[in-house]
Amino acid sequence: MSKKLFGLIAVSLVFVLVGSAQKIMGFTDANAAKQLEWEKQFDAQLNPKNQDTWMQFLTSHPHHVGSPQGKLNAEYIAGLLRSWGYQTEITNYYVLFPTPKFRQLELLGAKPYKAKLEESTLSADKTSGQKTEQLPSYNAYSADGDVTAELVFVNRGIPADYEELEKMGVSVKGKIVIAKYGGSWRGIKPKVAAEHGAIGCLIYSDPADDGYGIGDTYPEGGYRPKDGVQRGSVMDMPVYPGDPLTPNIGATKDAKRLAIKDAPTIMKIPVLPISWEDALPLLQSLKGEVVPAKWRGGLPFTYHVGPSVDKVHLNLAFNWDIKPLYNVIAKMPGSELPDEWVIAGNHHDGWVNGAEDPISGMVAELEEARAIGELVKKGFRPRRTIIFCAWDGEEPSLLGSTEWAEDHQEELKQKVVAYINTDGNGRGFVGAGGSHILEPFFNEIIEQVIDPETGVSVRERKYAQTVVTADKAGREKIAGDKNMKLEALGAGSDWGGFLQYLGITSINIGFGGESQGDQYHSIYDSYDHFTKFMDPGFQYGITLSKTTGRTMLRLANADVLPFDFNSFYKTVADYVTEIKKLLDDARAETEQENKMIKDKLYDLAKDPTKSIQSPKPKDEVPFINFSSLENALVQLKKKAEEFQQQYNNGTGLPAEKQKELNEILYKAERSLINDKGLPRRPWYKHQIYAPGYYTGYGVKTLPGIREAIEQRNWKEAQDNIEIVSKTMDAYIAEIEKAKAIIEKKAF
Amino acid sequence: MSKKLFGLIAVSLVFVLVGSAQKIMGFTDANAAKQLEWEKQFDAQLNPKNQDTWMQFLTSHPHHVGSPQGKLNAEYIAGLLRSWGYQTEITNYYVLFPTPKFRQLELLGAKPYKAKLEESTLSADKTSGQKTEQLPSYNAYSADGDVTAELVFVNRGIPADYEELEKMGVSVKGKIVIAKYGGSWRGIKPKVAAEHGAIGCLIYSDPADDGYGIGDTYPEGGYRPKDGVQRGSVMDMPVYPGDPLTPNIGATKDAKRLAIKDAPTIMKIPVLPISWEDALPLLQSLKGEVVPAKWRGGLPFTYHVGPSVDKVHLNLAFNWDIKPLYNVIAKMPGSELPDEWVIAGNHHDGWVNGAEDPISGMVAELEEARAIGELVKKGFRPRRTIIFCAWDGEEPSLLGSTEWAEDHQEELKQKVVAYINTDGNGRGFVGAGGSHILEPFFNEIIEQVIDPETGVSVRERKYAQTVVTADKAGREKIAGDKNMKLEALGAGSDWGGFLQYLGITSINIGFGGESQGDQYHSIYDSYDHFTKFMDPGFQYGITLSKTTGRTMLRLANADVLPFDFNSFYKTVADYVTEIKKLLDDARAETEQENKMIKDKLYDLAKDPTKSIQSPKPKDEVPFINFSSLENALVQLKKKAEEFQQQYNNGTGLPAEKQKELNEILYKAERSLINDKGLPRRPWYKHQIYAPGYYTGYGVKTLPGIREAIEQRNWKEAQDNIEIVSKTMDAYIAEIEKAKAIIEKKAF
Repeated sequence: MSKKLFGLIAVSLVFVLVGSAQKIMGFTDANAAKQLEWEKQFDAQLNPKNQDTWMQFLTSHPHHVGSPQGKLNAEYIAGLLRSWGYQTEITNYYVLFPTPKFRQLELLGAKPYKAKLEESTLSADKTSGQKTEQLPSYNAYSADGDVTAELVFVNRGIPADYEELEKMGVSVKGKIVIAKYGGSWRGIKPKVAAEHGAIGCLIYSDPADDGYGIGDTYPEGGYRPKDGVQRGSVMDMPVYPGDPLTPNIGATKDAKRLAIKDAPTIMKIPVLPISWEDALPLLQSLKGEVVPAKWRGGLPFTYHVGPSVDKVHLNLAFNWDIKPLYNVIAKMPGSELPDEWVIAGNHHDGWVNGAEDPISGMVAELEEARAIGELVKKGFRPRRTIIFCAWDGEEPSLLGSTEWAEDHQEELKQKVVAYINTDGNGRGFVGAGGSHILEPFFNEIIEQVIDPETGVSVRERKYAQTVVTADKAGREKIAGDKNMKLEALGAGSDWGGFLQYLGITSINIGFGGESQGDQYHSIYDSYDHFTKFMDPGFQYGITLSKTTGRTMLRLANADVLPFDFNSFYKTVADYVTEIKKLLDDARAETEQENKMIKDKLYDLAKDPTKSIQSPKPKDEVPFINFSSLENALVQLKKKAEEFQQQYNNGTGLPAEKQKELNEILYKAERSLINDKGLPRRPWYKHQIYAPGYYTGYGVKTLPGIREAIEQRNWKEAQDNIEIVSKTMDAYIAEIEKAKAIIEKKAF
Repeated sequence: MSKKLFGLIAVSLVFVLVGSAQKIMGFTDANAAKQLEWEKQFDAQLNPKNQDTWMQFLTSHPHHVGSPQGKLNAEYIAGLLRSWGYQTEITNYYVLFPTPKFRQLELLGAKPYKAKLEESTLSADKTSGQKTEQLPSYNAYSADGDVTAELVFVNRGIPADYEELEKMGVSVKGKIVIAKYGGSWRGIKPKVAAEHGAIGCLIYSDPADDGYGIGDTYPEGGYRPKDGVQRGSVMDMPVYPGDPLTPNIGATKDAKRLAIKDAPTIMKIPVLPISWEDALPLLQSLKGEVVPAKWRGGLPFTYHVGPSVDKVHLNLAFNWDIKPLYNVIAKMPGSELPDEWVIAGNHHDGWVNGAEDPISGMVAELEEARAIGELVKKGFRPRRTIIFCAWDGEEPSLLGSTEWAEDHQEELKQKVVAYINTDGNGRGFVGAGGSHILEPFFNEIIEQVIDPETGVSVRERKYAQTVVTADKAGREKIAGDKNMKLEALGAGSDWGGFLQYLGITSINIGFGGESQGDQYHSIYDSYDHFTKFMDPGFQYGITLSKTTGRTMLRLANADVLPFDFNSFYKTVADYVTEIKKLLDDARAETEQENKMIKDKLYDLAKDPTKSIQSPKPKDEVPFINFSSLENALVQLKKKAEEFQQQYNNGTGLPAEKQKELNEILYKAERSLINDKGLPRRPWYKHQIYAPGYYTGYGVKTLPGIREAIEQRNWKEAQDNIEIVSKTMDAYIAEIEKAKAIIEKKAF
């Protein structure tokens, strides 16, 4: 071959290589090619049979906090991770975890009824009969209490429902309330009830929401049967999650603890979750007005608001014990940047046998960890440290993850690049929420993971579902844009300590939407149920491993961390628009409503034979000065665009400069933290995302401002605009620092 | 008193009188004052005890077509009207009215069930036990038939539901369908089922719509109990109402009749209405997919689409008898214009004891007639002839009114100024629908009738309710405008022959919205039920008498008929805007949907474990030429405004000219009639209002155009635009004639 010819071929080859080279955000082309090759090998390792085997063991007995199986599971998980080459330890914390000593619920009077408070053993479900090991149905952190009173139905038990009750002239003062599950995190229901003077709270699963109204019930179908109960925590988690006795510090053996009576997150009244079978006689005892149409459930009778004539007797007592937690922490040290940590976490504790919640996510994490272990055997070395965590005590209120985050807060703030959370998983469509700087990065990943049912990318399938289920306006808004928007994160799983307390860039990932039933927090969330109705064959367990595996591996190996400030800007700008609209709408609605009250329209429209009260006028909504925030947004937009335009140059920086750049990038989210925290809940420090004070799981974005407006606290809203503006300024300064590093290289 | 002083006083008096004189549309000030004085005396006559007494008699036994009590009621009503000074006759027609000979419904297979098909006797309801006199629960004009087949649930049984079924891969061919009541007139359900190949149809009352889902059931509350059944006609009334054997002619004894087999409005398959108690075992036998969320009802199990594995056996046979009708026609001849007729009508036949439907409206009409009789005794003389009608056979399909209208069509076209319909009435808010030229006139009346519960005008109260129940957008649209918009009239009561066949200006008036339950077409629609739950004390019966009384008296006495062409223009212009939007939306949606199909989004979004079919592409929606209609609207607006500006001058015309003017005014609506009728249903001749071919009661405005677009028949839509434009031209010509008469006077 002549030199000339060779040269031509070489040029062609380069051209072909460059032309076909798949880019990955944050990688040089050469490193991208290597990375993709490792990912191919990673995928090849994944085997659904492993997930099946592990789930069988991990769900074989109830594995709640403090149970023998819970400890066994931690040891089993640790053993697996250790066997795959991870530096693995079990870290213990000691937390307040109340369990039932005594539970009694009865309807008194002419048609007395004693609630069964028990889920039946089913022959079709082989673990459902483990009665002596199961946690009875209860709400953790309910108060002890023995109360007898009339019953009032409060719909979902959220503040808006109490406004309706007031219109109907019904007070819950001194009463026991009964609320439907749904419409808020469960802990909001007793909290709001207690704020309105109720002395007890029952929460039941209405079949319209969670049972035969949706689909056939277990074991014929997958949905909640008549005696199925949703357990769960009612700790006041929107104030702080984790051990109620040790806010801000790790609940180590000798930690300084609050007295139980002083712990602000323990519920003030007794609360009990019940099945619809137990709720039915109680609901049927209610007199008073028929409920508003939107309050109706799926039971076959006419729902009334109450109060009941016959009284309800609720008697609950708990063992207020300190229980040990077993967090499994498994490290694969980084070859180049051992002090930059990429952490994945999924909890391992369940309320009972917990197959979907949490083991379906746990076994996907394990299979991911195993596959990475296999890659390492083949010579793969992550540049950054990879850490896999299996948290204990998520169910009672993110105990294990929160205590670990509080305990190691300084080190974590220093080292953690990102936290990737998973939890229950099922068949269907990809879903994700998290820090919006991750949005383009995550979209790149889901474009490359193939959906097992359709053969297209999970992103493509998600897009199809989003368009098909959207209404006309929604479709017009989507307008062919296949970008999957990340949800904002409130509460709901173990990211709280990382994202909202420490300001660590976080993402939560899972699949779902095609599961044929749900046994959330019931004894029936079992291996038998999961493998029949939720993800037969663990196809989506494997798809989750592929998705989170890429997320971990790319974050661990990226030359420049794949963060995008434009996405953050766009998202926050949308939030600001929303909030301004919220205020403007509140102003217009208040004006309109006050005029309607003044014009006596409510008085004239109401049925005089009913005890309906017309609403009372509200204070007028002032105009608020958003200018500092708006000015900050202008700067944020400018700086974010400037940075992202030069982002790709970062991969060419010398190693030391690149390290400096990456440190600024992954610490940028820390500047979204305000050390004073949010009003009335200093633990929550992130200024962009928080669980709602009156919604619980439901996120509130720009929470300091948004909740002040919702609570009609105009001064607090104005104060928080200034706080958020300053937070933005600090964040912009970080972007400028990052940009400066790249620019110095460029010239 | 000096002449001079007297003159001054006289001037002052005139000033005071003119200043304080209440205006009424169509009256000179002097005549308005007299009219208002008579109305005051009219109100003073009204006594709720009369309504109570008459209702007790009229509901004492079942009074359906052909029943002994039906005949007795006609004679009783005629006797009352005669005693109050009316020239009263009972006119007979002879109509096909099938009644059950045999009814059998059973579920075969492993869990057999024989339907009860009977409403229980209740001790709290004194007429509920009249078993030998009651018409059994059935759908009149169902076909005879003995069919056995699998069952399919079709939701409401309207065309859109069959599109959903197709997506689910379910066919009703050769099957029996079961549909929920509601969402359309009942006759649409078997018609559409038969079009799709079903061989039988069951219709049941789901408790979510009509039973415990809304309120407590009878007799504790007013709502439909578990075995309550809604009887009713399933004649194909959107083709033509009235006797199926004598379309277009009166069903006199010797009228030429179609053979039953040739009557196009008789249903082609057997149909039976059932209670939810009888429906439950059938619905529970259904297999196949779970129904879409919007299809769910209120029964306590998971609704499936079917088909069932076990078959259903439906066997129905009817006595196809000719029965006599007894229409009561009572005239009070006009003193000045005896050949101008103002007609009021309410039917007297019920399905069983029929207290609310129709006797509550009938007794209000009687009390109105009695009070006018009393005024006549005091010297009152209506200028025009007043006619009170009590129709027989409304329930089977507007038989009595339609046959009378067909029989007297030439005379009615010549003489009738307006037709005022009433039917069932209850506690609550005024409601009215009709020819839009009556809108300002009717608003003037409801401003002057006082609501018995609040002491404000019924218009004021209606406004309050409209605003309070509107959403934000609705409130902004209302924007303080207290005008009560008249609904457009489809089918539903006895105006059909007058409005849609003859082009007679019509209005239907009633109160409702605060009734505490409904026993529509059941044995429980009784005196006991009505007086406890629907209008205790007949307060709204009296309010209805006041409202219709003013309507009658003012139409009878007006100097110039109180019609407003501006209201007609505005309403029709809104309809045209709606229809253009309908077409544009259909075009955009078709384009969007076809693209989604082409992009395989439906294929990708669906659950591959289910038998879901992706939709098929639809033909593209063309642009259509609306210009002739738009040009006509411009003219209509101009001419209507010009006429209304001079309207008040009409009261000053000489008697002969005024008569000429009035005749043009009341015959203007005739020009909205097209003698060829609507496509595929020549009986319906009105070009602005018709019952929907696939909705039944539900009105379709500009039906020729609108339904063609809905059926995607673009050529027919274009053709009907031209037809409606010509109709508009003819209408405009009438307005011009009316204007010319006033103008000649003015100059």
